[in-house]
Amino acid sequence: GHPVFTDLPETVFESMSRLARQHGAINLGQGFPDGQGPDDVRAAAARALESVSNQYPPMMGLPSLRTAIAAHYRHHQGLDLDPEREVMVTSGATEALAGALMALVRPGDEVVLFEPMYDAYLPLVRRAGGVPRFVTLKPPHFRIEEAALAAVFSERTRLVLLNNPLNPSATVFGADDLGLLAAFCRRFEAIAICDEVWEHVIFDGRRHLPLMALPGMRERTVKIGSAGKIFSLTGWKVGFVMAAEPLMRVLSRAHQFLTFTTPPNLQEAVAYGLGKDDAYFEGMRADLARSRNRLAAGLSRIGFTVLPSAGTYFLTVDLAGLADDDVAFCQRIASEHGVAAIPVSAFYAQGSVKTLARFCFAKADDTLDAAVERLAGLFRAA
Amino acid sequence: GHPVFTDLPETVFESMSRLARQHGAINLGQGFPDGQGPDDVRAAAARALESVSNQYPPMMGLPSLRTAIAAHYRHHQGLDLDPEREVMVTSGATEALAGALMALVRPGDEVVLFEPMYDAYLPLVRRAGGVPRFVTLKPPHFRIEEAALAAVFSERTRLVLLNNPLNPSATVFGADDLGLLAAFCRRFEAIAICDEVWEHVIFDGRRHLPLMALPGMRERTVKIGSAGKIFSLTGWKVGFVMAAEPLMRVLSRAHQFLTFTTPPNLQEAVAYGLGKDDAYFEGMRADLARSRNRLAAGLSRIGFTVLPSAGTYFLTVDLAGLADDDVAFCQRIASEHGVAAIPVSAFYAQGSVKTLARFCFAKADDTLDAAVERLAGLFRAA
Ligand SMILES: CSCCC(=O)C(=O)O
Ligand SMILES: CSCCC(=O)C(=O)O
Repeated sequence: GHPVFTDLPETVFESMSRLARQHGAINLGQGFPDGQGPDDVRAAAARALESVSNQYPPMMGLPSLRTAIAAHYRHHQGLDLDPEREVMVTSGATEALAGALMALVRPGDEVVLFEPMYDAYLPLVRRAGGVPRFVTLKPPHFRIEEAALAAVFSERTRLVLLNNPLNPSATVFGADDLGLLAAFCRRFEAIAICDEVWEHVIFDGRRHLPLMALPGMRERTVKIGSAGKIFSLTGWKVGFVMAAEPLMRVLSRAHQFLTFTTPPNLQEAVAYGLGKDDAYFEGMRADLARSRNRLAAGLSRIGFTVLPSAGTYFLTVDLAGLADDDVAFCQRIASEHGVAAIPVSAFYAQGSVKTLARFCFAKADDTLDAAVERLAGLFRAA
Repeated sequence: GHPVFTDLPETVFESMSRLARQHGAINLGQGFPDGQGPDDVRAAAARALESVSNQYPPMMGLPSLRTAIAAHYRHHQGLDLDPEREVMVTSGATEALAGALMALVRPGDEVVLFEPMYDAYLPLVRRAGGVPRFVTLKPPHFRIEEAALAAVFSERTRLVLLNNPLNPSATVFGADDLGLLAAFCRRFEAIAICDEVWEHVIFDGRRHLPLMALPGMRERTVKIGSAGKIFSLTGWKVGFVMAAEPLMRVLSRAHQFLTFTTPPNLQEAVAYGLGKDDAYFEGMRADLARSRNRLAAGLSRIGFTVLPSAGTYFLTVDLAGLADDDVAFCQRIASEHGVAAIPVSAFYAQGSVKTLARFCFAKADDTLDAAVERLAGLFRAA
């Protein structure tokens, strides 16, 4: 047998960013915002290089940050978390996810995955020895249906892994979808890993509903969050994991041997940032919603079919009639039109959706306008 | 089947640090230095929060840091590394090690491990599906013997994992030991993972010999380094991996899904630091050697049998005649005498060595003197 990673391609985000650099393309592929995040949070990180120790912090994270995480989620989502026993800091949400799978999957366990899914999920599940069972969510609505859950859940289900809000489809799951999922988790005693890194990035007055808040889910949910996404500082790689103590104890065993800990000055700065007032979070959402609207309007105007975006940094366009292979399409627009996007087929393991492209709108107006201008050539040529 | 992490204890470094805090003990357990590392490296990290992007850097690491790593190892160790293809930045050496094992171990592969070994090694090997084969190195000399290698290497050997200099025994392996090991790796076509995080911390005029530099090993060695250890900034969690391109390609596949990347401002500061002149590295070694001598002299004077220390932050004492269980001994000195140390039995998987305790000497003179003073009570009481 091969180790699972040998046959794996490079992550699509890295290869599209490289293609963008090669062609001097505007990079609306990999999901990162323009700019440098909030000035005061960066300043807090600089100060903390002097004010906190630069030696190993506690393996679970700085007490100041764990306390700030618990307070943040109490205020924003009504969760009641014990900062000492139910909160852990990780080196980004990716480490949190990898660690949770390494800790919780026993070889042969079935793991329910929802496509479209982030490209790390499936290789990590396989590497942990899990057997994937796919629920395919389809455009344009990407809703979770009871029949689809009934088809994959069984006594063999150990885990379910959901991303809410969902990247790349920009779907926000609410009480209906989550209630269905929770019922199956309870019935089959499955653990849910809920990757909620986009929880603050939701639009049009929606409110994020953490899966952990549903009846019976408090004890069986691992909630993952990301400071990089909350503060538009994607390079910082400060993530959080929240879970009831019996789960957390096992999660910490994986964490201690994956990275052990996370830079203390960045932890301290995130602790500061999590206390920002509601106006900050409202402002961030309003800015991003304006950018979403601007890009959606531009892409529609030149001829794209734009799907709804309820959250995340992303919107998707339906290529039907324009291209039948989103990978070839994205390579072509990067090299010939100077705009990079992500082919959504990279998020489908079973090839069921092949004609969607994802654009990141977390960019300055000028950047978005220039991208639209460049892409207009696609339709003039046709 | 259980996932391997469920039954695992908390890492001994974390539990001894907690015990130290509870009892107000001087913490000579977990290996971290006093102080805040070099002022100019911290200042570079603060500047880089403004001068480099805080968004995702390339998955392999900032080009400036990869170039600095290649130049550093060319200058200090005569290695010839292509910064684009043979160098990768990780979120600490622990991530590098976890990723290398996840990437390279196929279920059922045999992995040769040398005891004493860092407590992460065995659980990570097991989690990756590897079958450990142990070579037991014995005090006081901890040398690698041909017969011991002959007893464990076979056609089933996929990997060997060595720490050089060796924590906790403070052994520095040179051409003899490494030559023996390299011969077995070549003969059985095994890959060597060499955890060389202590490479700069060696004393008395010794020079570090990277395993990768031995004949036939360039193509089959994964070399791991650590900026945290090089600059006494253990919380920063910036590690490096070096390997020939075919190996590196597989290693990067694991890295992209374990943490993906590492904070760019810390990467930039490490790039700056790696260019420091020889006087810096000589000065660090001379300071640490003085601290080693001070603690060794103090512990000998009060009655301990101190084993030689050729590198690392550590020295070990032989408890024979004083205690027959190093775990109980370390708990006792933390709670009753106010000094924390690490029981070396935690580094032996098979229980063959139980009466050594490890002390970290990377501390201010006053701290070391106070620890010796407190421990003197042990001998007065006896
Ligand atoms: C780790 S790069 C990918 C970032 C991201 O969340 C996305 O583009 O979907
Ligand atoms: C990750 S805490 C352990 C630090 C260390 O290298 C040691 O004390 O041996």
